[in-house]
Amino acid sequence: MRRFVLIGQTAAASGEFSLEDLPSSSGRLDALLRALRSALLVSHDVRRDVCVYLVLRGGPRAPRLLRIDGSRAKFLRPDERSLAILIKKSLDAALPHVRELSEVRPGIDLCEGDLPDLLASLGDEPRYILEEGAADLRGQSLAQDAWFFLGDHQGFDAASRAQLAARGALPLSVGPRSLHAEDVVAVVNNELDRTFNAAAR
Amino acid sequence: MRRFVLIGQTAAASGEFSLEDLPSSSGRLDALLRALRSALLVSHDVRRDVCVYLVLRGGPRAPRLLRIDGSRAKFLRPDERSLAILIKKSLDAALPHVRELSEVRPGIDLCEGDLPDLLASLGDEPRYILEEGAADLRGQSLAQDAWFFLGDHQGFDAASRAQLAARGALPLSVGPRSLHAEDVVAVVNNELDRTFNAAAR
Repeated sequence: MRRFVLIGQTAAASGEFSLEDLPSSSGRLDALLRALRSALLVSHDVRRDVCVYLVLRGGPRAPRLLRIDGSRAKFLRPDERSLAILIKKSLDAALPHVRELSEVRPGIDLCEGDLPDLLASLGDEPRYILEEGAADLRGQSLAQDAWFFLGDHQGFDAASRAQLAARGALPLSVGPRSLHAEDVVAVVNNELDRTFNAAAR
Repeated sequence: MRRFVLIGQTAAASGEFSLEDLPSSSGRLDALLRALRSALLVSHDVRRDVCVYLVLRGGPRAPRLLRIDGSRAKFLRPDERSLAILIKKSLDAALPHVRELSEVRPGIDLCEGDLPDLLASLGDEPRYILEEGAADLRGQSLAQDAWFFLGDHQGFDAASRAQLAARGALPLSVGPRSLHAEDVVAVVNNELDRTFNAAAR
C-alpha cells in the first residue's frame, strides 16, 4: 500500500467552507484536494493500492485526520468541486469525538488527531518526507509499501519536521523545481509505477 | 519555449458553461484546466517558458484555439474554479471571427481554428505526441524548445493522430499506467526540468 500524507497547516477540519470560494474559505484545502486526485485517480480508474491521509489543522474541530482508501472509496470524481463536496459531506458527518479512524462515507474515514497520532500508528514501513533540496528520489531503492509525507503551500512546520525525523523519515526531492503538492505526488506515483510496473494493479 | 497542446474533443469553445457543473456543462473542459495548471504553475510562481494551447471542439463557436502564454499571463490561480472563470471570461470576449491569435486578456490569446491551423503555424521545433504504449520519454533526447500534444479523457481521434503523424510528431509515453493529462504534463515538465535544470528560469 502506498500512503500519501498531506499536511494542511490551515486546511479546514470541518465542512464550514464555501464551494464558491474554496481557497480562502477552506484554508487552502483546495491544494490538498488536488493532491488527493493526483494520488488516487488514473485514467478511468482508481488506484486501489493507494491511501491518502489529510492532516487538517484549520478552523473548528481541528486537528482532525481524514483518510481516503482507494481500495474502498466510491464516487471519486476528478474535478475539484466534486471532491470538495465529497470531503465537505465527510467532514460534516455526525461523528462523535473519536480517536480512531471511523468510516463516514464509503472508503472515507475520519477521527480527531494530528500528525503525532498518525505517526504513533505506523508499522515499520519505510517513510519519506518530500522536500525541495533533499536527495533525488530517482535512483533510490523505494518501497511500494511505504509512507510519503508532503506539506502544503507553506511546506512543513518545524514541529512536524522534527516529529517525522524522530520517526526516521528520509527526506527526498523530485527534481530541481519547487512544485505544487499534486505534481510532486504525480512524479512519486510515476516513479513507483515504473519501479513496480503494473504488478500492484 | 515548452508548448503543451491539449485537445478537447468536446470541450466548450464558448463561455456557455456552468461553474456549478463544470464537467458536464463544459464538455470536460475541467480536464484541460487541470492540465493547464500543471503545465504553467509551480510553487508560488508561473513557468515563464511555457505556453499552453487548448483546442476547443465543443459547442457553440467551435472549433477555437486558446493560448495561455506563461511569459505574459497574469492572475493565474491554481484552483479549478478560478481558472474556469478566467477561461470563461476569455471565451466570452467580444472578439470578431479572426483566424490569428489575438489577445483577449493578459497573456491569453484566442482565435477560430482547429489542430490543422495550429500545425500549419509550427516552425521546425520537435513535436511529440503523448500516448500510452509509445516509447518511454525517459532516456530520449528531449528538446526544451518543442511541442507536446496531449488528448483529453477520450484520447486522440484518428484524424488528429494522422495530422500529427504527417507533421512528424514522435509518439512518447510516460510509463506503464494510463494517467490523467495533468499528471502526464507534470511528468513531462519534471523530465524537462531534470534535463535542462534551472537554466530556463
